[in-house]
Amino acid sequence: MKQVLVIGAGLSSAALVQYLQQAAQANGLWQITVADSNLEAAQKRADNHPHTHAIQLNASDAYELEQIVMQHDVVLSLLPPDMHVPVAKACIKYQKHLITASYVSDAMRHLHSDALKAGVLLLNEMGLDPGIDHMSAMKVIHELKNQGAQIHTFKSYCGGLVAPEYDDNPWHYKFTWNPRNVVLAGKSTASFKHQHQIKYIPPARIFKQIEAVEIDGLTYDGYPNRDSLGYIKPYGITEAHTVIRGTLRGSGYCDAWQLIVDLGLNDDQLMIEDADKLTYRSWLAAFIPDAHFDNLEEKLCTFLGISQSDVRYQKLKWLGLFNDRPIAVRNASSAQVLQLLLQQKWKLQPHELDMIVMQHQFGFELNGKMFLRKDNLVVKGTDSTYTAMAKTVGLPMGIAAKLLLEGSISSRGVQLPLISSIYTPVLNELEANGIIFTHQTTATT
Amino acid sequence: MKQVLVIGAGLSSAALVQYLQQAAQANGLWQITVADSNLEAAQKRADNHPHTHAIQLNASDAYELEQIVMQHDVVLSLLPPDMHVPVAKACIKYQKHLITASYVSDAMRHLHSDALKAGVLLLNEMGLDPGIDHMSAMKVIHELKNQGAQIHTFKSYCGGLVAPEYDDNPWHYKFTWNPRNVVLAGKSTASFKHQHQIKYIPPARIFKQIEAVEIDGLTYDGYPNRDSLGYIKPYGITEAHTVIRGTLRGSGYCDAWQLIVDLGLNDDQLMIEDADKLTYRSWLAAFIPDAHFDNLEEKLCTFLGISQSDVRYQKLKWLGLFNDRPIAVRNASSAQVLQLLLQQKWKLQPHELDMIVMQHQFGFELNGKMFLRKDNLVVKGTDSTYTAMAKTVGLPMGIAAKLLLEGSISSRGVQLPLISSIYTPVLNELEANGIIFTHQTTATT
Repeated sequence: MKQVLVIGAGLSSAALVQYLQQAAQANGLWQITVADSNLEAAQKRADNHPHTHAIQLNASDAYELEQIVMQHDVVLSLLPPDMHVPVAKACIKYQKHLITASYVSDAMRHLHSDALKAGVLLLNEMGLDPGIDHMSAMKVIHELKNQGAQIHTFKSYCGGLVAPEYDDNPWHYKFTWNPRNVVLAGKSTASFKHQHQIKYIPPARIFKQIEAVEIDGLTYDGYPNRDSLGYIKPYGITEAHTVIRGTLRGSGYCDAWQLIVDLGLNDDQLMIEDADKLTYRSWLAAFIPDAHFDNLEEKLCTFLGISQSDVRYQKLKWLGLFNDRPIAVRNASSAQVLQLLLQQKWKLQPHELDMIVMQHQFGFELNGKMFLRKDNLVVKGTDSTYTAMAKTVGLPMGIAAKLLLEGSISSRGVQLPLISSIYTPVLNELEANGIIFTHQTTATT
Repeated sequence: MKQVLVIGAGLSSAALVQYLQQAAQANGLWQITVADSNLEAAQKRADNHPHTHAIQLNASDAYELEQIVMQHDVVLSLLPPDMHVPVAKACIKYQKHLITASYVSDAMRHLHSDALKAGVLLLNEMGLDPGIDHMSAMKVIHELKNQGAQIHTFKSYCGGLVAPEYDDNPWHYKFTWNPRNVVLAGKSTASFKHQHQIKYIPPARIFKQIEAVEIDGLTYDGYPNRDSLGYIKPYGITEAHTVIRGTLRGSGYCDAWQLIVDLGLNDDQLMIEDADKLTYRSWLAAFIPDAHFDNLEEKLCTFLGISQSDVRYQKLKWLGLFNDRPIAVRNASSAQVLQLLLQQKWKLQPHELDMIVMQHQFGFELNGKMFLRKDNLVVKGTDSTYTAMAKTVGLPMGIAAKLLLEGSISSRGVQLPLISSIYTPVLNELEANGIIFTHQTTATT
């Protein structure tokens, strides 16, 4: 009987563990261990399922980690990214495969030859973004190239949002994942290729550089996300004159968020001293020259060059930024003060569902004609446990684990899911689980 | 015979070691050891002086460090700031005094009671800025308070610049100290108090928030520097409605540097891949939407909202940003690419002299009338070794060491030079060494 180890029983493990349990029940070929530093969380996730048991694991204890890893065949690490390398080393030592949904780090990359020697696969970026984005893009890129097409442009956007039926606020946003990542989004200079030119957009103006992206009749703001240049070679699209990867938000979100950036509210280095003695109003006033308690609204508009009837102003007001309400935290960065406010206003209620939207755009030339192909993915959450995010992050890992246990993935070493032998069976199984892309190609000349 | 240990034989040790040598020669009371990881550098600084010997020291080796510290009475650490704490611990263990020119860290602060128990002084912020700024400001603050004045405003500006007679470029700037610090200036949100209100200025607009500061008939740009709020309590000026500390640059520098910030060129996180395959022109073009090789000048002006006759544009052009000249470094952040260019253009030649300018402004009320007192300091370098920076950073440390060796400083524990028993004798001795403030008070109502 094969053994699968899932380390981490948090949000992203729900769909993954359920998928592995259903498969185990159907084929009777493996047992699942859910390990977490919190035994109760592991037990909750194991859910008394006959093929699953829960254990407590302190993954930062190298000995304890090795003792567990050695008893399993495939390890899925949902730990924070900097914890994957010790797990990978234990996997190499005991010749076990590893799957993560995280960006491959340099330290992970250095394990490639050791992993090859041990005959193990260390499969990274096997979640949603990175993960499903890679696989679905590579499938189309390979298809187009096989047809003899030349890819001129590649754009890829993804966002985790609230499902439209629960979208009832002017920002068209609710937190469906780690709020801190949302507050700190756009803190790195974005780099991409546009019309043969390398372009850098610094944090101060990332949310100004948006593109309208239409999916299923709804329009989203797409803003450039971090380093898109690093994907050109791995994707094999060096001939493309435009390559950009970005993040999707509801229409109008970026314009308004840019004001928060302009103000400087999302600064995570700036410590607000004795924040609990301040109100949101006084905190906001500190960022605007010449503003004080009584003239704040007026000075904010003058400073930002907007009027009080501006939809962006209305969005700021809706957040409660002008409220003379005490800040309920003592030691906090400005970004944390902001996050605290947003968590109250952008809270996804238990009955509300989230949604994942993704779009790839391929501009290509075939037989002397130009075409634009768009591949769309829309996934909605089932409930507050099996969210769209949990499904799209977890299922690719679970499917890869199943394929490994069945012996149908033969790649070894440090890998990303860019090759057909990985992405084809995984995408097929994702389709069978309701994660289905649609696509449309139109002639553009 | 007492023993003084100077750890670090870099630029800032020149005036300091010379001062200690002269004093040693005059009073015959002490010997100086200059220690550096590079023995030659230590020997060069010791200069075969009869009262000085040079040694090699690996300060990161705790045992080696202790063996040296135990043989001395006073230790002056010119090491990088994060190395001061191990030195301080060795000083406590062997009951030796320590002096540094660095901002006191939290880890250093935590050594206060241990230092008291050991009967040693750990004196920090004993350079120029921090150092002379503290001492000269505290002297006036105490004087004014003793006269019964109420301090309403306190502003303090300091800059390390090229002496006016060698100022021959449109930026009115040359590197006189660590270039990296200049390129990365303004990367932290500035915080200060203005008209009773706490104000934060994020990095994106620090160089827009300038104040004209006149010293000796020349006008400088003063921009707010990091955290000014933290000085309000230590300075005892909680009643002041305006407290700001800032940095001085030549007039017009900040306006032009703001364009570099707007472009994003000074980004130290953005790694420029294969920078050696780029030219400055192509690197610059990457930061401007829609710009390419042929339309760069035009697109830059449109993007920044300036014309080619603008003095700011002329400054950018003078730097060589538009030149199609290869970048002579392979792996570098954008800030490093910029620094490389600036080091060529802003190079202080060996025969050219630097200059330190400092101004404190005290707005106060005395007997119902309002006054403005300005205290100015201008120090010019003697030559390329005894620069204004080396003198103003090194002499306060050297003087404090002398006073300690003479037994005339009785403070113990972790201290800053904010108390009269330290600043009075140090400022007097600085005056005797040509570091002399002038001041002027005018009635403002």
